[in-house]
Amino acid sequence: MWDVLFTNVHLATMAGDEGYGEIRDAAIAVKDGRIAWLGPQADMPPGLGAKAVTVHDGGGSWLTPGLIDCHTHIVHAGNRSDEFEARLNGATYEDIARAGGGIMSTVRATRAASEDELLRQSLPRVRSLLAEGVTTIEIKSGYGLTLESEAKMLHAARRIGRELPVRVATTFLGAHALPPEFAGRTDDYVDEVIRMIGPLAAEGLVDAVDAFCERIGFSHEQTERVFQAARAQGLPVKLHAEQLSDQRGAELTARYNGLSADHLEHLSAAGVAAMAAAGTVAVLLPGAYYFLRDTTPPPVAAMREAGVLMAIATDCNPGTSPMTSLLLAMNMACTLWRLTPQEALAGVTRHAARALGLQQDIGTLAVGKRADFALWRIARPADLSYAIGLNPCRGVANAGILRSPAV
Amino acid sequence: MWDVLFTNVHLATMAGDEGYGEIRDAAIAVKDGRIAWLGPQADMPPGLGAKAVTVHDGGGSWLTPGLIDCHTHIVHAGNRSDEFEARLNGATYEDIARAGGGIMSTVRATRAASEDELLRQSLPRVRSLLAEGVTTIEIKSGYGLTLESEAKMLHAARRIGRELPVRVATTFLGAHALPPEFAGRTDDYVDEVIRMIGPLAAEGLVDAVDAFCERIGFSHEQTERVFQAARAQGLPVKLHAEQLSDQRGAELTARYNGLSADHLEHLSAAGVAAMAAAGTVAVLLPGAYYFLRDTTPPPVAAMREAGVLMAIATDCNPGTSPMTSLLLAMNMACTLWRLTPQEALAGVTRHAARALGLQQDIGTLAVGKRADFALWRIARPADLSYAIGLNPCRGVANAGILRSPAV
Ligand SMILES: [Zn+2]
Ligand SMILES: [Zn+2]
Repeated sequence: MWDVLFTNVHLATMAGDEGYGEIRDAAIAVKDGRIAWLGPQADMPPGLGAKAVTVHDGGGSWLTPGLIDCHTHIVHAGNRSDEFEARLNGATYEDIARAGGGIMSTVRATRAASEDELLRQSLPRVRSLLAEGVTTIEIKSGYGLTLESEAKMLHAARRIGRELPVRVATTFLGAHALPPEFAGRTDDYVDEVIRMIGPLAAEGLVDAVDAFCERIGFSHEQTERVFQAARAQGLPVKLHAEQLSDQRGAELTARYNGLSADHLEHLSAAGVAAMAAAGTVAVLLPGAYYFLRDTTPPPVAAMREAGVLMAIATDCNPGTSPMTSLLLAMNMACTLWRLTPQEALAGVTRHAARALGLQQDIGTLAVGKRADFALWRIARPADLSYAIGLNPCRGVANAGILRSPAV
Repeated sequence: MWDVLFTNVHLATMAGDEGYGEIRDAAIAVKDGRIAWLGPQADMPPGLGAKAVTVHDGGGSWLTPGLIDCHTHIVHAGNRSDEFEARLNGATYEDIARAGGGIMSTVRATRAASEDELLRQSLPRVRSLLAEGVTTIEIKSGYGLTLESEAKMLHAARRIGRELPVRVATTFLGAHALPPEFAGRTDDYVDEVIRMIGPLAAEGLVDAVDAFCERIGFSHEQTERVFQAARAQGLPVKLHAEQLSDQRGAELTARYNGLSADHLEHLSAAGVAAMAAAGTVAVLLPGAYYFLRDTTPPPVAAMREAGVLMAIATDCNPGTSPMTSLLLAMNMACTLWRLTPQEALAGVTRHAARALGLQQDIGTLAVGKRADFALWRIARPADLSYAIGLNPCRGVANAGILRSPAV
């Protein structure tokens, strides 16, 4: 009757609004890649278990939904450890910009790399996430900034989903930075970004559209033009909003029924209210906050109070968050911003799924959902947020198929 | 002539006072577990390479000294994720103490565990370090606080060195906390600690003696009594000093020619000068600073100026630094305290060796030293400090014998 059965596990289903949805001494069954049954093992329908094709004894492990990293720039060429080192040796940001550093050095490297090379450089970072029980990753473009090179990034992202056991959601982030060839002509570049959406979407490369709304990025008005173009193509939007200053980006995103507004260190009370009303998820990115030594935390208490759902992601990127551990992002969210371990786990499962519009399919353990699981050698779910640099993952299931954490 | 030869590597020898001691396109040879030759591969003595019993092609990897975690409490039973979660759900430290939490919960769990159980619980944490190229670990006692249970911890520590490919340096930390049976009788407990040193040392369980000198630990005078007893047994000393307040612990340690003073957030100018004069290493523990959300950094610039050697360690412990990634400690030292990547790498190799008194034997790549190496898939040494949560280790050699990072 069942294809796969996991016995002798404790479940953190994350299916309710509060708590971990704990089911101790449980079993969970898979049919056609989806959850067919779950519950206390003692309640398992008699006879069904014996007929499962494959039975895995979890040995008392905890089993959670597969983790979801819902905000990454993980496809890119080169890194910026040279700038990191130069800054620590006394170079200013100005020195580095003058030497051709900053985001444009990543754009140059990414433009110059072939798709194969881009993939080759990105795979070790993805493997690092996958070793920690991640089964879905969002990947943004945004270091190409031409139709051709943005397409190359998104093709590489899709290939990651074919070459490794991970589901990939792609986001077109043409409005990430102003490429040098458009210097002084930001509005013209926004027109160009808008022209890119159609062809990229037609190739099936775009699951959502994003922008960097900031004084050093794109204005509220420019962002709205991108959002209008995305919606005209039927694509959902999300936004890098309120990281460095309040641009009312979250309100804009809520107005366009955006999936998520991300960063949010400078989110206003009006922004919190707008997100709550629209059901736009707050994607928190503690890695960037940590790496940039930021001191303004996002308004976590206000968001919690208002019922804004909070997700957590690595923001994996070479300039401001060279982070490839989602467990560490959970710890940082707890340590630096006082999320609870339960909120942190919801932030990389249930709420991260919603930030990608995939809440019908993944993010909780419930009958009918895709059988993406992570198995953990831990005493309790809080261990996932508590430990720093320990990977207690002992197995991962993608659509019910068990694999080793290392791939 | 040689037992093992690593070719096609770039060396970061860490052997000079400045820089990484880079040798590009190099080879390094091992005889009887020690480095027999190293240099540019083109300079290799003709014929010698061909006679090596085993040749490993490094494939362009970087090769550094094996990493050294010179301050851990990695042997302990239980964890404190329950307290971590309770605090984030609003419990005060007082609530937790009243419920039997804090360090005494670890003491109870450690006393209750058999030596085998203590080992079983500690090995995954040690394996996490070893996967990142660590070849030497210091392990402290201090959760037993009776002769019998301190001995049990130190026996477990020694067994780690036999059961896994790692060299273990043990430190007796009887003066870690006041056990409940000595409540109100701290001086009596110090007498008891002093009485423990002889029997433990006689069993070969003590490479150094440490104490926690703090208002909530042991006083300057009590610490000095422990130091006198250690020196009477010919044992070197080190100290948990100036973490929460200035107790002039570093000065005391320097006066006893201590190997290291550790933490040092509240180190005074006089303490810096005393350490510099005595050659006492500053062991920096950014994990505890991060986890406790401390805001007073150790005086890194003053120590650098004075020539105090700085090491970096995880401080792996269940209460204030549940961290088992030495690479992450390097990143935190750079990110939070502005060490350079070169200082960070010296801090887990050359200077960490000195903090254990093992500088003659390990910590740099030089002829005659033990052939403990880590091989890295990186573009440059700064990558080790820059990346957050990525493990680029591709191999480890213990006394010249190559192993996989995962053990
Ligand atoms: Zn981002
Ligand atoms: Zn310590």
